[in-house]
Amino acid sequence: MNELKAYLEWQRQWVDTALKGVLPDPAKRPRILHEAMHYSVFAGGKRIRPILMIAACEAVGGQRETVIQTACALEMIHTYSLIHDDLPAMDDDDFRRGVPTNHKVYGEATAILAGDALLTQAFVLLSTPQPGIDARLQQRISQLIAVAAGAAGMVGGQVVDMEAEGKNSDLETVNYIHRHKTGALILASLQAGALLGGADEATFQRLTQFGENAGLAFQIADDLLDIEGNQEELGKDIGSDQARGKATYPAVLGIEESRRQADQLHRQALDCLAPLGDKAQALRAISAYIIQRTH
Amino acid sequence: MNELKAYLEWQRQWVDTALKGVLPDPAKRPRILHEAMHYSVFAGGKRIRPILMIAACEAVGGQRETVIQTACALEMIHTYSLIHDDLPAMDDDDFRRGVPTNHKVYGEATAILAGDALLTQAFVLLSTPQPGIDARLQQRISQLIAVAAGAAGMVGGQVVDMEAEGKNSDLETVNYIHRHKTGALILASLQAGALLGGADEATFQRLTQFGENAGLAFQIADDLLDIEGNQEELGKDIGSDQARGKATYPAVLGIEESRRQADQLHRQALDCLAPLGDKAQALRAISAYIIQRTH
Repeated sequence: MNELKAYLEWQRQWVDTALKGVLPDPAKRPRILHEAMHYSVFAGGKRIRPILMIAACEAVGGQRETVIQTACALEMIHTYSLIHDDLPAMDDDDFRRGVPTNHKVYGEATAILAGDALLTQAFVLLSTPQPGIDARLQQRISQLIAVAAGAAGMVGGQVVDMEAEGKNSDLETVNYIHRHKTGALILASLQAGALLGGADEATFQRLTQFGENAGLAFQIADDLLDIEGNQEELGKDIGSDQARGKATYPAVLGIEESRRQADQLHRQALDCLAPLGDKAQALRAISAYIIQRTH
Repeated sequence: MNELKAYLEWQRQWVDTALKGVLPDPAKRPRILHEAMHYSVFAGGKRIRPILMIAACEAVGGQRETVIQTACALEMIHTYSLIHDDLPAMDDDDFRRGVPTNHKVYGEATAILAGDALLTQAFVLLSTPQPGIDARLQQRISQLIAVAAGAAGMVGGQVVDMEAEGKNSDLETVNYIHRHKTGALILASLQAGALLGGADEATFQRLTQFGENAGLAFQIADDLLDIEGNQEELGKDIGSDQARGKATYPAVLGIEESRRQADQLHRQALDCLAPLGDKAQALRAISAYIIQRTH
């Protein structure tokens, strides 16, 4: 476990250094926008998605340097989604990971625009030629990330999540929300890592299946953490999903059945990695760590 | 003039048909998001940017079919920027082009997400392979549009515009706002049209210069229209820039000098088109029409 923590910390620092290099200079005009972008990107993110991308790339025999530009783009998209989710018109959150949310520091207008600029900057990165990477491959990755982030992915999941709030949701709706709101971007991280690492089509499909199962297991674990976790680990108030009437697995299936499903999905995910052998060890360790936080 | 109006109408209808084809189906989940996206895309836009892209493509000898996917993407980016600009935290506008703004119809949360989804969907289009177009060229166009739309372009201009509101701005600030907030996306339309039409580097540079001059002239004309125009043509209240203390050319330079500069920029823009001969006739007619609305 200490070994995994050291690995995660080592990767996180490397991703942070890269992110500093690709964000616009806060000393340059318009400073307030650049500052607001920096603020949320460096507000304590664990870089789970970039690290999953790196681990997927290494699991198929690639080098982490190959994915770093794409990993930064994905983290910017994740950060923009958090800034917009926290807005008064959305979840109206004053704090995230223990620090004030973007709009509490910079005001709503700048927060909306900082989110817009991060999303757009991600596509600047995704369309910037990278030495040694074929333009057609980069285009495919850009497309799969855009699909995962948009109406057919994360944004679509967020809308259904809002609609479901305060209602009795069925399992199909909870599945839709989790697969889209959080699952799509996690899956895209793994797919991009696999493609950039040089995976053949069969290996790409295996990592896709791993991502679909593990992504859903992550989210069920998150739902359970909201009920059973400790506040420090969660970074938000315990029971806040319940208080808001959010559509969650425990609300639909109960705690025991939710835990059973998370474990089953986790096992199915690990099965997909079997043919990759030792190279997938980091990916196994990270997914176990994320899913088993509540155990 | 009637001939130009017929041309613009003919192109507009063609762009509208294409836009219908690339937006997500409003009958599919999440319906409210898809509906909100459709609503603003079809809320009376004149498709100036797509038509400029078509005209630039034809000015260098290309076919309009080549640009249509990119033109739709650019119009989606333009539409997302209008939805977010109109939000209560930004300009707080209830009407645009005579119809209720997105958040008045769908609520703030859905309006923010519809904007996010349109911006993202634009990059889905820009990264979708197009038969007959080289992946590297598509990547270059995607990059120049992303740069024009983001912190170094439109979003940056919007932030400086907000900061300048109610202050006495200098010419440099007004220039910055106009070149970024509106100029960047107009320039990108022309550049994308030129590249997709097969322009060589010298012709690309000429259209870039045309776009820089014409884009600024368009915006000065818009500032003048806010003071002198009629409400029907403008689609918003006369004098609303002044009432808000917006940084405009007339506020900094006076009406006469602003008109003189618009005319001069227009002449310089037309000079850039001289080597293109008759093929650039549509581009000349459209720019004259936009700039001379107040004459």
